[in-house]
Parts: sequence; structure tokens; C-alpha cells
Amino acid sequence: MELTVYLAGQIHDHWREEVIQKAKEQNLPLTFVAPQTNHERSDRVGEDILGEQPGNVYRDDAASDINNFRTEVLMQKSDIVIALFGETYKQWNTAMDATTAINMNKPTIIIRPKSLVHPLKELANKANVTVETIDQALETISYIFE
Amino acid sequence: MELTVYLAGQIHDHWREEVIQKAKEQNLPLTFVAPQTNHERSDRVGEDILGEQPGNVYRDDAASDINNFRTEVLMQKSDIVIALFGETYKQWNTAMDATTAINMNKPTIIIRPKSLVHPLKELANKANVTVETIDQALETISYIFE
Amino acid sequence: MELTVYLAGQIHDHWREEVIQKAKEQNLPLTFVAPQTNHERSDRVGEDILGEQPGNVYRDDAASDINNFRTEVLMQKSDIVIALFGETYKQWNTAMDATTAINMNKPTIIIRPKSLVHPLKELANKANVTVETIDQALETISYIFE
Amino acid sequence: MELTVYLAGQIHDHWREEVIQKAKEQNLPLTFVAPQTNHERSDRVGEDILGEQPGNVYRDDAASDINNFRTEVLMQKSDIVIALFGETYKQWNTAMDATTAINMNKPTIIIRPKSLVHPLKELANKANVTVETIDQALETISYIFE
Amino acid sequence: MELTVYLAGQIHDHWREEVIQKAKEQNLPLTFVAPQTNHERSDRVGEDILGEQPGNVYRDDAASDINNFRTEVLMQKSDIVIALFGETYKQWNTAMDATTAINMNKPTIIIRPKSLVHPLKELANKANVTVETIDQALETISYIFE
Amino acid sequence: MELTVYLAGQIHDHWREEVIQKAKEQNLPLTFVAPQTNHERSDRVGEDILGEQPGNVYRDDAASDINNFRTEVLMQKSDIVIALFGETYKQWNTAMDATTAINMNKPTIIIRPKSLVHPLKELANKANVTVETIDQALETISYIFE
Amino acid sequence: MELTVYLAGQIHDHWREEVIQKAKEQNLPLTFVAPQTNHERSDRVGEDILGEQPGNVYRDDAASDINNFRTEVLMQKSDIVIALFGETYKQWNTAMDATTAINMNKPTIIIRPKSLVHPLKELANKANVTVETIDQALETISYIFE
Amino acid sequence: MELTVYLAGQIHDHWREEVIQKAKEQNLPLTFVAPQTNHERSDRVGEDILGEQPGNVYRDDAASDINNFRTEVLMQKSDIVIALFGETYKQWNTAMDATTAINMNKPTIIIRPKSLVHPLKELANKANVTVETIDQALETISYIFE
Repeated sequence: MELTVYLAGQIHDHWREEVIQKAKEQNLPLTFVAPQTNHERSDRVGEDILGEQPGNVYRDDAASDINNFRTEVLMQKSDIVIALFGETYKQWNTAMDATTAINMNKPTIIIRPKSLVHPLKELANKANVTVETIDQALETISYIFE
Repeated sequence: MELTVYLAGQIHDHWREEVIQKAKEQNLPLTFVAPQTNHERSDRVGEDILGEQPGNVYRDDAASDINNFRTEVLMQKSDIVIALFGETYKQWNTAMDATTAINMNKPTIIIRPKSLVHPLKELANKANVTVETIDQALETISYIFE
Repeated sequence: MELTVYLAGQIHDHWREEVIQKAKEQNLPLTFVAPQTNHERSDRVGEDILGEQPGNVYRDDAASDINNFRTEVLMQKSDIVIALFGETYKQWNTAMDATTAINMNKPTIIIRPKSLVHPLKELANKANVTVETIDQALETISYIFE
Repeated sequence: MELTVYLAGQIHDHWREEVIQKAKEQNLPLTFVAPQTNHERSDRVGEDILGEQPGNVYRDDAASDINNFRTEVLMQKSDIVIALFGETYKQWNTAMDATTAINMNKPTIIIRPKSLVHPLKELANKANVTVETIDQALETISYIFE
Repeated sequence: MELTVYLAGQIHDHWREEVIQKAKEQNLPLTFVAPQTNHERSDRVGEDILGEQPGNVYRDDAASDINNFRTEVLMQKSDIVIALFGETYKQWNTAMDATTAINMNKPTIIIRPKSLVHPLKELANKANVTVETIDQALETISYIFE
Repeated sequence: MELTVYLAGQIHDHWREEVIQKAKEQNLPLTFVAPQTNHERSDRVGEDILGEQPGNVYRDDAASDINNFRTEVLMQKSDIVIALFGETYKQWNTAMDATTAINMNKPTIIIRPKSLVHPLKELANKANVTVETIDQALETISYIFE
Repeated sequence: MELTVYLAGQIHDHWREEVIQKAKEQNLPLTFVAPQTNHERSDRVGEDILGEQPGNVYRDDAASDINNFRTEVLMQKSDIVIALFGETYKQWNTAMDATTAINMNKPTIIIRPKSLVHPLKELANKANVTVETIDQALETISYIFE
Repeated sequence: MELTVYLAGQIHDHWREEVIQKAKEQNLPLTFVAPQTNHERSDRVGEDILGEQPGNVYRDDAASDINNFRTEVLMQKSDIVIALFGETYKQWNTAMDATTAINMNKPTIIIRPKSLVHPLKELANKANVTVETIDQALETISYIFE
């Protein structure tokens, strides 16, 4: 049984590569999909495709059209969603993606550092599993194959 | 990841061939499905299968039975819907197909010329992405694979 | 049993007043809701509420946000939808509203003149009932109470 | 037609009172529901009901059980959701509530200051309407009754 | 607690009057709704509203548009469905209405004589309760109020 | 594109073999599934598996458990449903299966002789397409691949 | 805002009277509904209505038809479900009712003694709130009205 | 046609091996999935992954997070669910899994000894098929392929 995992969350560091590398080392039968991780391209994709927009609000809205489209296609193809929250950014799109996954009955794992326990408590409460590290998330998925 | 794309919209010109040709040139892993594009056959299919009907209203209704059946089968098999509106016709069936796709949570792209911005504003507002050209629609889909 | 009826369709003439007046004359226990019928206000409501927009595309999109919001609230409160198509305009929003009603399992009546049989054939085929006059639509609803 | 409005968002200031007061002044036929707005009680309600918990993680999880229960009951009773984001906090629960409302097809208005346009762009893109002030949100709702 | 009960089934005798009369005698807090029970009007309603049709197939289809519309409105308003099968007719519309009720999670009671046990076995198996008499159906509903 | 077709309807003659043979001759990419067509085994399967039952009602109910289970598994795997009605039997299970298919949004074709137009009018009205012969049903499906 | 609460669980003691009495003392705006609490009548209702059955399996199945019918009607009318587990019985119907409530998105509270923590852990994990006493359950509901 | 079968139920004996072995002997085209059957690992998996918990309630809740996550992933991949009840344990998680399967429209077979007829009557009534032995469950599934 092959499973597809959507990796929601921040695109400012290389956590996805770590997940993918570790899953490979453990020979887990997983395919990973994700949002655009080139931050600049992600912010600019609306104008890249639709042409210059009249200011930041419209530029951001155009980019969101394209990014939400991509997320919707790929999340519908996924069996599991991992959503990682880091300490720096607002990450409301991550909260939105995790919530949408939960509402679609996609089994969902949240990864967040201890420092974020309090602000993430309601969402952690709704997710299937909440952990602190990438290793714990992969252990949770690997448990399916035991 | 292979994706299936339903091409809703007018059947009076050759825009579907252009989409398919360009997707091929870009090696996009897409399979395309569509309504009957032979216009005469599409209008006549009710009588072709069910026999002569007593007038135009019944002839049209019989054809719609068969065409809506085909659309329903193929749209359910699709991951993405592109709906193209041109300047000439009423295209209420295109509006119906695009709306149905949106209501089925099929990620949906509308292509329409600038001249149609005003009459299509409510539907464009509900679609995931609205663009003006076939190239922009394919760029949007190709962005999924970046 | 009181029923609420959403009146989708063009806002360029006074067909809704006619529906409401005739329903009253027949003492039908119906409450009617509808989109904004002041055309100018409808087109301008985005800028009225959100402020001036940078051009027509954005002006139209802002207006559609508000108009689609109103439609969604009122259609969810309705038991029946009547969608009237006239001969003049593109009316893709009417096609969208009728399709959404059908997809929400709201029993839906389409009113259209004979001249529109052909372009509306697929949507007429999906609606519960398609008629040519307001009187026929009201007879259909009044039949529920016989 | 009476409508019920759920007021999601931060509980650190008095924006809900302002909404309610202004709606009253305009005689809008609205009933408002909301999460617990006593912040201390909200954080402590898990232990208040279930007894002392062994540390903050468990205290927060217990509180979230009760708060999510309340939100679920009240949001299901609502016709419209307003979600307000302010500049100070993480507000991931607000993002979760707004997303859940959108996924439940509850017509949803987001209020956020200009400074939050960029981090909220994906969620604003999915909401029905996004505005900057309480007055604009109320104008949007009041437009339903025009 | 008032409940609304849809009475599906044949319109050739007076079983509905019996149900209503007995419910009244027992003071059950029930409101009853039903299809058109004037058989001639039911068969003719398509032509009554839409005008003369070109033959029986079209006459029947027009009548079904109107009758299915009525059923859909009233069944959505109902909390419980009773479907009665008699020994004489084909009653495929009754089978359709009972199945639709079951698929809509409307708690459904089938009434059928012993002689119909075999041909109705699959549908009886899917219904919540299957009984032989009107009295048993009312006892089943009256049990809710004990 | 391979499609799976569920063949609902009477099991007293060999119409399914005819469908399968003709589809093969036309090289249609179809896989067919169906209920148990050995009538005796179908009626007896409850007792075959669960042991002797105390009378006909229980024997029939036990058989229906198993037959409805089989239908549910196979219909969920299907893309299209064909339901054939013949002139002889009550066929309420066929009406149930066709209705369930329609309620599950499985594109559905009804085959029925002219003599059954009147009693099947409501169900024919809800199906996507209603035809009189096996050849017409296959033409309808084959139209998808044009 | 009036809320309706379904009280699932054992019918061998008087816990429901205690819930109702305490809710009344606190003036909570709650209406309570419940399964048949006369145990003998509940076990016998199948035969009471449908007549003598040929043995215990059939007697129990007939009773379950009627009891599940009642539960389905009343649970659909409810806004909240409380499911109480006691120490003595198997209570698989209580587990079924609580699970159904959770799957229907009815906000659900489980009451169970400490001794049942381990066997109920998976269901407690899925419920919105799990408590040990009736007082805690009522505090949870009363929190909605603060 | 390959089918996937989820084997819900107790993990204290070796009934799953028996199912799998017998299916293999009969060459049934079935793939089986199941919960963790190493009981100790199942109870301990929360602490194995998330670290030591402050007492039994939290240890059990952490294990349930992981076990419910596994069940949700695998049940969504299944076409059929078999749930076996034995005589010894409370097995409320089995009742929960069977109920969830039924609510998800997964065709569901319950296996239970005669001694459990009475306490399982409501759930047996809702399942598609209820049998007493593994052989009967496999005969039911094998009937699909006849």
C-alpha cells in the first residue's frame, strides 16, 4: 500500500527535505506532495501568470488564487496531511490547510515546538495527532505499516 | 502524478486542440476529456439514439439527456476543470458545467476574454482561477508540477 | 406550511414584482427573497463598501464578493428556487445560481421564453421543471398545496 | 428574516460589543453568538470543569475540548460568520474557525487591518468577503436586507 | 415536539385518510404531507400547466416533472416517511420515494401485506421498519413519544 | 479510460449476456458487474450461509442481507448503472437499485419497453437517460468515447 | 437559544432524571430526548408491534428495528448528545449511538467512571469532551450560555 | 476486481490469521488491513512516540491518537469491513469502528457468537450482514465473485 502525504507549512527552511530523506532511509512507501517551496516564486506567481497587478493587495490575491488551486489539487490526491508550524511566522495559511484537511477527513498530523503549545491548542485538539518533531511524525505514519 | 482535465466550453472552434497540443509540447502529464465537439452530432444525438422527436423542444431535451450523461461520467473522472467562454454564444451549458465543477470541489479555471469580464464576474469570483488565455491556464496547471 | 422562494435572474425589469403580486392574489403561503434588484447599486456595491478599486476588473470582482455573499445567505434559507431567463442579456450569473440550486437539491423551476429553448437545453434538462411563464411557475408551486 | 452571526476572533479587546452596538443602532435583525470572551475563564475552563491537569499541555488540551465544543454548537446554529484578525496575536484558532466556517458553507466575512494583507492572503482569498473595518462587515450584512 | 410525516404510496384508495384519522384519535403531534391524491389530476398536471404534449410519453414526462417537484419539496420538510405498498399496481414511484427517503436518512417505515413479502424483500431490508398494517406504523411512530 | 458498468434488473432471462456480448463486439472498454443471476441461489443464499430460517419472511430477509451487501460493494465500484425493467415482474429491487444509483450521482440509464412508460414515468424522469433497447443503452455509453 | 440534548446510554438506573432535574435547577434552556427507558418495554417492543417472533434472535432484531428508528428520529432533532457509560453492561448500543453522533457532527459529551478509562479510550478520544460526572457534563453545556 | 478488507475487532487472539489463511486457500482476490495486533505495542504506542505521559488517562489518550489515526487511514482505503466481537472484552473500540464503517457506507459484516446476540442487537441491526463464524463472513464476501 502506497500512501501520498501532503506537507503543509512554512516554506522558509528545509524541513520537507528532511522528511523525505528520512522516509527514504526507512523505506516507507510514501509519495510526498507540497506547496511551492520557492518563496519568491510563490509570492510572485499571480503576476507571473496573470500579469502586473495594481498594488500589493491585488498581487497577493492573484498569487493566492494560484497557490490555493495547487493546494486543492494536491491535497485531494493525498491520504495523509502533515502540517508543520515553526516559531517565526504567522502561518495562517498553514492553519487553513490543516483545518481543511481535518474537515475533509484527511488523517492529519501537526508538528509544532513546545513553545507553540498554547496558541495552537485548539487546532492541535482537532488534529488526529500532534507531535514536536519530524521523527515523531514519521514514526506515527510508519506505525501504519507495522 | 497523472492528472485528468475536463475541457468545458464552446465546441465551435478548435481551442481544445490548442490546449492539447501545447500541453504535449510542455510534456505535462495530463489526460484531457471533453464533451462531444462535433456540433451537429451533439445537437442530433438524442434523435440518433432515441429516434425522431416531435419537435425542437423534445429533440433538444433528448440530446441534452445524452450530452449531460457524457459530461457527468467524464467530469467525475477529472481532477481539474477548464471552462472557456468565447465572445459569440450564450454558453449557458458552459456556465452550468463550470458551476457544477466548483460545487463538486473540482479545482476550476475559467478562460475568458477581457470583453467578458463584466457578465462573467460572479462566476469568475467563484472559480479558483480566472485567466484570459490558454497559455495562462496551462501555466497555472503546470505550476502544480514545479 | 410556509415556503421561502429565491427568485434568481435578471434585474433589468419587474418580473419579481409580478411574481409576488400574483402569489399574493392567490394567497399562496410564500415568502420571496432575491438578489439586489437595483442594478446600479448591485454593480457598485463593491466600491460602495470596500472603497474605490483600481479599474473595472477589480470593481466587478469586489461587487461579486458582496453579491455572491448575499445570494449564498438567502439561497440557503430557501425551499424552492425560480430562475428566470430573458432574451437580452448573457445572464451567466443566473445560470450559475440555478445550477448551484440544483446541486444543493433545492427544487428548481426555470422560466424561459420559447426563443431560448435551444441555448438553455442542458440546464432545462437538469432543472426539476422548466416553464415559459410566471403563471406556470406559480401553478407549479401552488400544486404543492393542493 | 432573522439571521444568527457567529463572531470568531480575538477575545482581548471589545470589538464584539462594537459590532453588537452598531447592529442595534441600525436595527439589523441579527442575533450574535461568540466564543467565551473572558480570556482567563477561557484558558482555565478545562481545569474548572475537569479538575487540575498535570502541566500546561494537558491544561490547554482540556480547555480546548470545552472551547471547541462551544464553538461547534454555536457555529452550527449560525447563518453567517465574521472572523476578525488583529495585529498582535497568533490567532490560529481564528484561522481554524474561519476555515471551518468556509468548509461548512457558512457565508464568511474576514475583518483584518491593511498590515495583515500579506499573511492572510490565502484565507482572505477563500472567504466570501474580506474587509478592513467592522463598519464594512456590517454594511455587507445589511446589504442582504436592502 | 411536532413531527412531519410524508405518506408515500398508492393514490387509488383512502389509506391516507385512515392514517390521519387514527393519528388524530391518538392525539399524536404529527403533521402529514403527501403526493397529489387526485389520480386524474396527478396524471394530467403536466398538460394542465405546460399545455398539450405530443403523445403519452411526453405527457407522462411532463406530469412527472411536476409530481417529482412536489415530492422533493415535501419530503425535504419531513422527519419521517411512511411508504405503503398495495397488491394491485406496479408502484415503482413508491419504491423510488421510499429509497430516496432511506438515502436521505429520513427514518422510513414500509407498510405491505404478507403477500408482498417476497418481491419487497430487498427494500424492506433497507427500511428502518417494515410492518403490515397502518396501526403498526402508527404504533411505531407513537413509540417515539412514550 | 476503462469504465465499470453495474447491470441492475431482472435475473430471469439473459439480457446481461447480450449487453456483454455486444459491448465486446464494439470493443467498448467496459467491465460489467451485476447481482447474482442464478435466481435459485439468489433466493436461497441467506439460508445457504446463515442456516435454515424460521419461515419465508426470515428466509427472504436473510437473502436480502447478502444480496444487498453484494450490490452495495459492486455499485460503489461502478462508474455507470444500467437498470433494465421487463414486463413480467414487480422488480421493486430494480427500482431501488436505480434510485440508489441516481442518489449516489452514478450516471444511470433505464431500459424499459414502451408498455412500461406510464408506471415508470417518475423514475425515468429522474434517470439521466431512458431508452427502450439494449442497443440504445450501449450507443449512449459508446457516445462517451467518441 | 434553546438547545435539544439526546441522552444516550444505559436505561437501568435513573441518571436521566438527575440530568433533567439539575438542568432545571440551573434554568438551562435545554429540552431532553432519550431512548425508551422502560427496559422491559424496550426489549419487547418488536413483538408488541410486529407480533410474536420465532425465537430470541428475531425478537431482538424486531425490537432493534423500532428502537433504532426512535433513536434516529430523535438524534436528528438534537443539537448535542450526552452518552453515559456505566460499569455493568456491555452497552454496545451506547457506543454505536455516541459514534453515530460524532459522525453526524453532533457535539458529543461522554460520561464514564474512572474505571472505564482504558476500554473507552478510543471513543473518548473521538468525542468532543469526556467527563466523569453528570455535573461536569452540565457545566460543559452551561458554558455555552456564559 | 481486487477488494481491500479492514478487519476490526479484538487483538487478543489469532482470528485475523484464520481469515487471511482461509481467504488464501479459496483464492479470494482480497487484501487485508487491520489495527495493530501486538496488544502491548498498541497500548504503549502513545508513549513510544510522544514520550512518557503523566498517568494512565494521558497514556491511554496518547495511544488512542495514534491508533485512531492508523484506523482512519486504513479504513478509508477499504472496500469492506469485517468486525468481530468475542465473549471476553468490552470492545467499545470495535463497536466504534463498525459504526464508523456503517456511517461511511462501507459494506460491513459483524461476526459474533450466539451468546452476544442480545447486547449486540442494535448494531447487528444496522450492519449489512451479521454472522456467527469466520467461514460465514468469507462465504458472504466470496458470494460477490460468483
